[in-house]
Amino acid sequence: MQAPPFLAACRREPVPYTPVWLMRQAGRYMPEYRAVRAQLGFLELCKRPDAAAEVTVTAVDVLGVDAAIIFADILLVLEPLGARIEFAAGDGPVIHNPIASAADVDRLTPVAAGALDYVAESVRRARAALKVPLIGFTGAPFTLASYLIEGGGSRSFLRTKRFMLGDAGAWHALMERLATAVRDYLNLQIAAGAHAVQLFDSWVGALSPDDYRRFVLPHMRALIAGITPGVPVIHFGTDTAGLLECQRAAGGDVIGVDWRIDLDAAWARVGHDVAVQGNLDPTALFAPLPELRRRVETILGQAAGRPGHVFNLGHGILPETPVAHAQALVEMVHELSASR
Amino acid sequence: MQAPPFLAACRREPVPYTPVWLMRQAGRYMPEYRAVRAQLGFLELCKRPDAAAEVTVTAVDVLGVDAAIIFADILLVLEPLGARIEFAAGDGPVIHNPIASAADVDRLTPVAAGALDYVAESVRRARAALKVPLIGFTGAPFTLASYLIEGGGSRSFLRTKRFMLGDAGAWHALMERLATAVRDYLNLQIAAGAHAVQLFDSWVGALSPDDYRRFVLPHMRALIAGITPGVPVIHFGTDTAGLLECQRAAGGDVIGVDWRIDLDAAWARVGHDVAVQGNLDPTALFAPLPELRRRVETILGQAAGRPGHVFNLGHGILPETPVAHAQALVEMVHELSASR
Repeated sequence: MQAPPFLAACRREPVPYTPVWLMRQAGRYMPEYRAVRAQLGFLELCKRPDAAAEVTVTAVDVLGVDAAIIFADILLVLEPLGARIEFAAGDGPVIHNPIASAADVDRLTPVAAGALDYVAESVRRARAALKVPLIGFTGAPFTLASYLIEGGGSRSFLRTKRFMLGDAGAWHALMERLATAVRDYLNLQIAAGAHAVQLFDSWVGALSPDDYRRFVLPHMRALIAGITPGVPVIHFGTDTAGLLECQRAAGGDVIGVDWRIDLDAAWARVGHDVAVQGNLDPTALFAPLPELRRRVETILGQAAGRPGHVFNLGHGILPETPVAHAQALVEMVHELSASR
Repeated sequence: MQAPPFLAACRREPVPYTPVWLMRQAGRYMPEYRAVRAQLGFLELCKRPDAAAEVTVTAVDVLGVDAAIIFADILLVLEPLGARIEFAAGDGPVIHNPIASAADVDRLTPVAAGALDYVAESVRRARAALKVPLIGFTGAPFTLASYLIEGGGSRSFLRTKRFMLGDAGAWHALMERLATAVRDYLNLQIAAGAHAVQLFDSWVGALSPDDYRRFVLPHMRALIAGITPGVPVIHFGTDTAGLLECQRAAGGDVIGVDWRIDLDAAWARVGHDVAVQGNLDPTALFAPLPELRRRVETILGQAAGRPGHVFNLGHGILPETPVAHAQALVEMVHELSASR
């Protein structure tokens, strides 16, 4: 039996065409999703396995992508650790009890058994309804730590870095707890049926390579080494053009890159013995279709037909994106890669 | 006569110690600056050559840096082009008549003779009072275009990219006008006495290399080629780890890089036949001094004593920065580089 193209590409096996999926493919740009959200709040939707599975599957049906990603949020694992998270409409997430000291780190609670079973149940239901592989995911420890410490999003990550530089012991204690919780959470999703998992280290590109090596890499390495063997791990970040070698050293079967670097340069830097995922600028979906096509051709040209490329955006699809262009993108990737 | 270390480093000549200055060194973190701003609005201060020269010189006196940068804003050149800019307290700049169409581009006015003479006068006054070289500066065309189109700052630069992708002709017309205005403005500052100039392409890192090559590089090349010969040009951006080769191709005697890439990797990528400026994370100034010192040593170690390194932050100094740490940084750079 032939492996589905997405899983084959993760393992750098030959594929008949380049598999493609889109980060945040079940999201606000899609009318079917907005209809569900008119009934349910964001967190409520995450916690309703029937509805979460439904929007997961609908996105695949609408787009024709080669993989599903379970509907959830990168921050869900923080709630059972003791964070009081609110997903306010329009704004980013807010954490009402941010971490400011070593004592706050000590007060984090171990994730109680069953606390994230609702995600496992979403995975089981989505998998049963899908014909393509299903990806589980979570935020990675640095990105999670930045939300915990900043109390939400940030531009400068000043609080996070102050904490890291001012109390290295507390920082490493925090990262250890997060790495353990994340590892267990991903393994839970795998046990429930996820075929692959993605670590979203969305904001790790705020760090210098030297800081990454000292404050993040050991935790990522331990975490990735603890993920159920045989399941492809996608290791993703943005603004990482200067960090790619470090991320590679931390681990992952597939390194996800954004559009701020040419895909061929990125692949050369991480090494051709891992797969890569990316890397269309999400704003390209607002371009006229001939221009979008030109960009797909450029990226496929940089991948050069080498086994191990999963096509994706370089970050999540934007809420204003025209659905027809997302559909056209998937078709273009399939058509242009099959004819190469 | 020996060239001052800053200018010698820009020209990759040997120096007795690594010269250092800090982007936004005359800024809100400094009590002397806040005292002046208690009397004058931001734009008012920019337009008062006596006061602008004073804060320029005070920063050098307080810090002991090897270069001054004229007190001004990267967006000043937009006002005589017809933009209605407001610098609202606390928020970023707002442009009340953003550009949305080719017709809006056509409506931009040529910079009237004398419109930016107030900056030239600030340069003359600061230069007369300074013992170190003086840097003139402006925003670079892409960064200026992004403010004009977004009407202010942005995270996704969606409007800017939509404009660029949707009407390439209007985009290139806009970039041509901006490149011409910027070139003339920098030459005006040089004629008034600036020893070097810096192009702040602060947000260009939002682009893919392919987009940079198509939509930015030709304009930057023409602009830089038109700058008064013999005057060092510092070409700076952030998030540029994937763009460095492209920026190098566009020009500049010194390439400014942020902390998201190791300095040795950045220098190898732009080539050792240009100088580099950078690249301490501005948040490092919040670290305990031994940790700050460790970071200075790391960067100087990466520069490896090769002629052509100007020490700087990777972006502007943050408003909350302790002045004593900025002073300590300057001392550390001088001491540690002299003893290498």
